[in-house]
Amino acid sequence: MRQTHLFTKTRREAPADEVSKNAQLLIRAGYVHKEMAGAYDYLPLGMRVIEKIKGVIREEMNAIGGQELSLTALQDPEIWKATDRWDDEKVDVWFKTKLKNDTELGLGCTHEEPMARMMRDHVNSYRDLPKYTYQFQTKFRNELRAKSGIMRGREFMMKDMYSFNRTEEELDAFYEKAIQAYKNVYDRAGIGDKTFVTFASGGMFSQFSHEFQTVCDAGEDIIYIDDSQNIAVNEEVMKDDILEGLGVKRETLREAKSIEVGNIFKYGTRYTKELGVTFKDEDGIDKPAVFGAYGIGIGRLMGTIVELLSDDKGIVWPASVAPYGIHLLSLVANDEVVVAYADSLYEELTAVGVEVLYDDRDARAGEKLADSDLIGIPTRILVGKDTISSGLVEVVDRATGEVKKVTRTELLSHMGSVST
Amino acid sequence: MRQTHLFTKTRREAPADEVSKNAQLLIRAGYVHKEMAGAYDYLPLGMRVIEKIKGVIREEMNAIGGQELSLTALQDPEIWKATDRWDDEKVDVWFKTKLKNDTELGLGCTHEEPMARMMRDHVNSYRDLPKYTYQFQTKFRNELRAKSGIMRGREFMMKDMYSFNRTEEELDAFYEKAIQAYKNVYDRAGIGDKTFVTFASGGMFSQFSHEFQTVCDAGEDIIYIDDSQNIAVNEEVMKDDILEGLGVKRETLREAKSIEVGNIFKYGTRYTKELGVTFKDEDGIDKPAVFGAYGIGIGRLMGTIVELLSDDKGIVWPASVAPYGIHLLSLVANDEVVVAYADSLYEELTAVGVEVLYDDRDARAGEKLADSDLIGIPTRILVGKDTISSGLVEVVDRATGEVKKVTRTELLSHMGSVST
Repeated sequence: MRQTHLFTKTRREAPADEVSKNAQLLIRAGYVHKEMAGAYDYLPLGMRVIEKIKGVIREEMNAIGGQELSLTALQDPEIWKATDRWDDEKVDVWFKTKLKNDTELGLGCTHEEPMARMMRDHVNSYRDLPKYTYQFQTKFRNELRAKSGIMRGREFMMKDMYSFNRTEEELDAFYEKAIQAYKNVYDRAGIGDKTFVTFASGGMFSQFSHEFQTVCDAGEDIIYIDDSQNIAVNEEVMKDDILEGLGVKRETLREAKSIEVGNIFKYGTRYTKELGVTFKDEDGIDKPAVFGAYGIGIGRLMGTIVELLSDDKGIVWPASVAPYGIHLLSLVANDEVVVAYADSLYEELTAVGVEVLYDDRDARAGEKLADSDLIGIPTRILVGKDTISSGLVEVVDRATGEVKKVTRTELLSHMGSVST
Repeated sequence: MRQTHLFTKTRREAPADEVSKNAQLLIRAGYVHKEMAGAYDYLPLGMRVIEKIKGVIREEMNAIGGQELSLTALQDPEIWKATDRWDDEKVDVWFKTKLKNDTELGLGCTHEEPMARMMRDHVNSYRDLPKYTYQFQTKFRNELRAKSGIMRGREFMMKDMYSFNRTEEELDAFYEKAIQAYKNVYDRAGIGDKTFVTFASGGMFSQFSHEFQTVCDAGEDIIYIDDSQNIAVNEEVMKDDILEGLGVKRETLREAKSIEVGNIFKYGTRYTKELGVTFKDEDGIDKPAVFGAYGIGIGRLMGTIVELLSDDKGIVWPASVAPYGIHLLSLVANDEVVVAYADSLYEELTAVGVEVLYDDRDARAGEKLADSDLIGIPTRILVGKDTISSGLVEVVDRATGEVKKVTRTELLSHMGSVST
């Protein structure tokens, strides 16, 4: 993409009402636009990051047997009444609306109920199970406060997976696979080293649920980390008998602020029993399917990456989720030879499948370098007057600042072999 | 995808309350699930069709300079009040909801207002224009009636593009390109021969807007077709002076029921003036950008394809938007040699990049053939006992029923060369 074509512009200052670092940087660099507190538009660069994150998660969900679908936002009250989750006292983040005939509808804040009801049409026998479904879908949550930028949205995209199993044991085995798939996601997104599987309250049907908590000062949560086991617990389960059961000593736990970047639940037969998702077992007996749910907020994850992987100059994307792999800068806008060289390098890189953002603007080198730092693409290629005389382009690593000078041939042969 | 893995099942009967042919077929074949009137879930096969349609449209929008983004569904009343479109009397399809503090919000039924406001941050000078933005985004419309299946949704995905130009002439030139891009979309989606550029009322700022109307008995609209010019007019513009201006004779017009599969508008400076999307021209004078909008309902288009391209056995997808290119059926589930042959053929086709739905179920041949007709994948490959003895597989064209017998080598070399 040529930056003269890209409609977004960088800006020096974030809007005064934007208090979170992630949104400040993302707005300044042109990734997002704020519609209102907790509701952000994703602009072309932001869309590319979202699609990269979705791609990583999709691969991991497909690898454990997930099938992608997409449920509606509009919610039929009947199924939520059946599970006692329609009342605003029971679920305090509902947005509700009305049809012309005054029938009340909800906007989905999660999708256990419609997923279970839909699955009823497709499950009859034990031979139909297990099945795993997931979606990338927009959730609506009527949060009282939304001051964490894209990390706490009133409207946000979530990957929510649901598991339908025959037995608790079958669910347990899948649940372990899901934990590993989640770890893979955070590793691939560049925040694995700061993300802990965290034991949380399991509710009525399971001893524990699990959160994935990323240590970060911007977090709204507190976790207690056991570094020797590389796990954590949250406030709810900081009880002596539970800690003992986990083989964790209270006095060795390290307290840290953290961001919940994922959570997974075993529901047992909650929801499936109430909504009639039953199957005939091998003896012909009707049983409710054993149910689980697995969530990752896409904006939350993107915001966490920005909070952790940024410096005072801007964002530092990991290559896996960066909007482009290469930021090519032509540093002398009024030098025809430099511009022609950069133009042809852009065409060649694009032709071998490298995703390049090309700063072809009529702007000063200093402005281009500052914008490039802010936008945070992992690898920068500089074409200047030196390039023409020496035949070497500068390749700069955004994270480390390391500079290499390479010939065009070296660059193209390297890039061609790493592009996907 | 192996059908034993796919969670959806076909069904003989559509739900009794489903009166539209498109939704009946799509539900029976497992593409969609009905949440309520006008709100449908897209199941794995349906998702694949949606993604194919989006892919076609994305290519055409990018080819005319479009940049993809995604705006929020939640709507700030202020911008809609500024253009006098907040009042339910003015726009009669609003869904509205409320924040905890009782602030009223809307759910986006279209996005001129937020698109214009967002663009204000990125347009200052004539050098920043023209710019073209688009999104695939979920719209909410509080329709009084929603009985046309996925063709009239209360919640549905729309591709909406917006153009920001410097002059009327620049908009006019882009508008012509958009008409051609839209024609390309309908051609590629297999309904081009029945789709007419239709002159409609232009409102205050332009003589005409244009609809793309597809002739179909299930349509809710009426158009009047001039076959000699391959254009149509709608009811609004059936006036003698207008017909004369278009060079159309009333008595030669052919009346037909039709489905509006797209519409495009020139707004002039409506919206951009009210919302302050201005740019400094070459003389330093502030001018409002000249605005246009271009919509295609994705479900509407998918439903129209089903209405037109189906027979009494089921759907007949065009290859461009089919969920898979090949439906591979192993016809003798209890014959190990046949199953092994089909398994290995599935693996080989998948390995060369062909998208295959593989019916590996333990079911009778008749059931598999009927389901395959219903699901409607363009090319069917049959592996039976004959295949083992003769070395030939049957390749059946869903649309024509034409059967070819080919060797495995011929099949693989043909498929490998056509896969994308």
